[in-house]
Amino acid sequence: MDERIHEHADVLVDWSARVEDGDDVVVLVGEEAHDLAVAVGEKVGERGANLLTVYDSGEVTRAYLRAHEGDFDEDPAHELALYENADVVLVLAGGRNATAKADVPGEVQQAHSKATTGIQEARLGTDWVSTLHPTRAGAQQAGMAYEEYQDFVYDAVLRDWESLAEEMARMKTILDEGSEVRIVKENTDVTMSVEGRTAVNSCASVAYDSHNLPSGEVFTAPHATEGEVFFDVPMTHRGKRIRNARLAFEGGEVVDFDAEVGEDVLADVLDTDDGARRLGELGVGMNRGIDRFTGSILFDEKMGDTVHLAVGRAYDACLPEGESGNDSAVHVDMITDMSERSRMEVDGEVVQRDGTFRWEDGFEA
Amino acid sequence: MDERIHEHADVLVDWSARVEDGDDVVVLVGEEAHDLAVAVGEKVGERGANLLTVYDSGEVTRAYLRAHEGDFDEDPAHELALYENADVVLVLAGGRNATAKADVPGEVQQAHSKATTGIQEARLGTDWVSTLHPTRAGAQQAGMAYEEYQDFVYDAVLRDWESLAEEMARMKTILDEGSEVRIVKENTDVTMSVEGRTAVNSCASVAYDSHNLPSGEVFTAPHATEGEVFFDVPMTHRGKRIRNARLAFEGGEVVDFDAEVGEDVLADVLDTDDGARRLGELGVGMNRGIDRFTGSILFDEKMGDTVHLAVGRAYDACLPEGESGNDSAVHVDMITDMSERSRMEVDGEVVQRDGTFRWEDGFEA
Repeated sequence: MDERIHEHADVLVDWSARVEDGDDVVVLVGEEAHDLAVAVGEKVGERGANLLTVYDSGEVTRAYLRAHEGDFDEDPAHELALYENADVVLVLAGGRNATAKADVPGEVQQAHSKATTGIQEARLGTDWVSTLHPTRAGAQQAGMAYEEYQDFVYDAVLRDWESLAEEMARMKTILDEGSEVRIVKENTDVTMSVEGRTAVNSCASVAYDSHNLPSGEVFTAPHATEGEVFFDVPMTHRGKRIRNARLAFEGGEVVDFDAEVGEDVLADVLDTDDGARRLGELGVGMNRGIDRFTGSILFDEKMGDTVHLAVGRAYDACLPEGESGNDSAVHVDMITDMSERSRMEVDGEVVQRDGTFRWEDGFEA
Repeated sequence: MDERIHEHADVLVDWSARVEDGDDVVVLVGEEAHDLAVAVGEKVGERGANLLTVYDSGEVTRAYLRAHEGDFDEDPAHELALYENADVVLVLAGGRNATAKADVPGEVQQAHSKATTGIQEARLGTDWVSTLHPTRAGAQQAGMAYEEYQDFVYDAVLRDWESLAEEMARMKTILDEGSEVRIVKENTDVTMSVEGRTAVNSCASVAYDSHNLPSGEVFTAPHATEGEVFFDVPMTHRGKRIRNARLAFEGGEVVDFDAEVGEDVLADVLDTDDGARRLGELGVGMNRGIDRFTGSILFDEKMGDTVHLAVGRAYDACLPEGESGNDSAVHVDMITDMSERSRMEVDGEVVQRDGTFRWEDGFEA
């Protein structure tokens, strides 16, 4: 077995989920995630925790959902009891076919999802972490060869998370203490307020309220946005491509936009509701293990030397206790490359220039 | 997908487990039992029941058990809650390697098993059925080619169970109403009492208290055995072979024995305790879909035109309410071929001769 699979399990169990002696652990195993499940099983055993493995199969779910007629029962007691009694839930994604449920009608998936809200809440109430095992289906989705994709995933996952968390803490402090963020590059000059907002250090550990492995971004909830941004990183929204989009803000709202590809898709997003024209997130990608865009937002938005802005819903964690930020039915991340001829300023001081942060060697203010 | 996989799922869900609308169903999926899981998922959906799939992996279990040090927690709450809230448990065996746990020390497996007694009881408290999906590992264990093994398994599983249950009911009535069973063939002439005992019609359905698919035997708990039996069907006990064994009974106890191969293994069995020298079971194999011996007792003892006797523990279901029968730490089935030059009599009347029952065409008393 590839030694990196064991290292992945170590990061997941120790850094991300912080599994301890006596914990009741549920591990969801994707159809092709067997090898990672074996390594995780070993690690959970070492920790003296208790293991139950769930088979998380898109093909079984498809067959079940398509055959089921009429209403779904609400929160079946056996599954609800499992998660209500779990301390840790680890999701090892990795199926045989990324589009295994393509022919399940959307309304059936939504009805099932709605009927099992209590189960989903019980899962979110645990120390849960979601990761993925590199499979051939995943490689195909990313447009890569299998071994190439394995390297890509492990480069993103097998970081020195402790030192990355410390570095991300610097960025968090700057954003927390700052008032105004400005991003400048070709076709881009935008400012936004982060006054009174709290940034999240998303470093792939439940200890930091970060539940994805890999992660590696610091994000907050900006407001009062002014100016223009050009998003040069390709993206897809609900399976449709958007390329080279531009947003222009006045008084916190999008007042103009265009895109070389998918302008209509972008228009639909912005027309969803009032909140869809305001920003919900400013995120700074700091995972330099991710070295290319693959069209998977899980990786793309974490890539080192990128910044993403999301129109739509803001996360409560970024707002003062009891306050809620921008509200919307959507949250669509859009990414801009900060590696060259670019700078990010906070309150007039340059924090990052041409992909180098101010605490790094070679930084020039 | 092989149409027989869907037929297998139909038999399992409808005939064996009797899954109904609203049932909370747990399906344990062996490492290579994916295709059967898909077919079962579809069927469970059709019935309007609720599905949770558990990944039942010998390799994950091995890794977990070997890494775990110290005592196991008793009945972890999450797994116990799952099975306590389940109505139906379906086990789809079918791993990658039949000996996946070969290097887990026996005492570790026993300690884990002992610590999870409550979970096992909760599972046995449901309408549970155990079946197996034909895998390459299973084929190898049976000494067959893969396609040959698939045919073998489906021939055993895809019976007309309703009509076989009716035929087995005849056998049950004969044994229930009879007092003395006699088995006669070359080197064999043995009598035993079945007075006051109740036979079980094991026809692979929870409606008959039969929990294995395939099944196909009628069994009871005999006593007062006299005479000699020759067991010409090869068998293994704890991985060791026994061939052409002979037991001689007087007053219900084994007073003499020998075997061409594995006589020492047989001696160990008989020396286990007092009950190990008395019979715990007389079983009549009636599944004619099983046409050869494979060394798997699940199939061998159900084979049509065989009779098996087990030394050791008797099943409570065969005994009058509140009474317990022969007690022992072992229950070792031994099989004799009844297809040729043989007869079974009950109270002096021939019930089966040369592999033909008295209700079948061609029977000669």
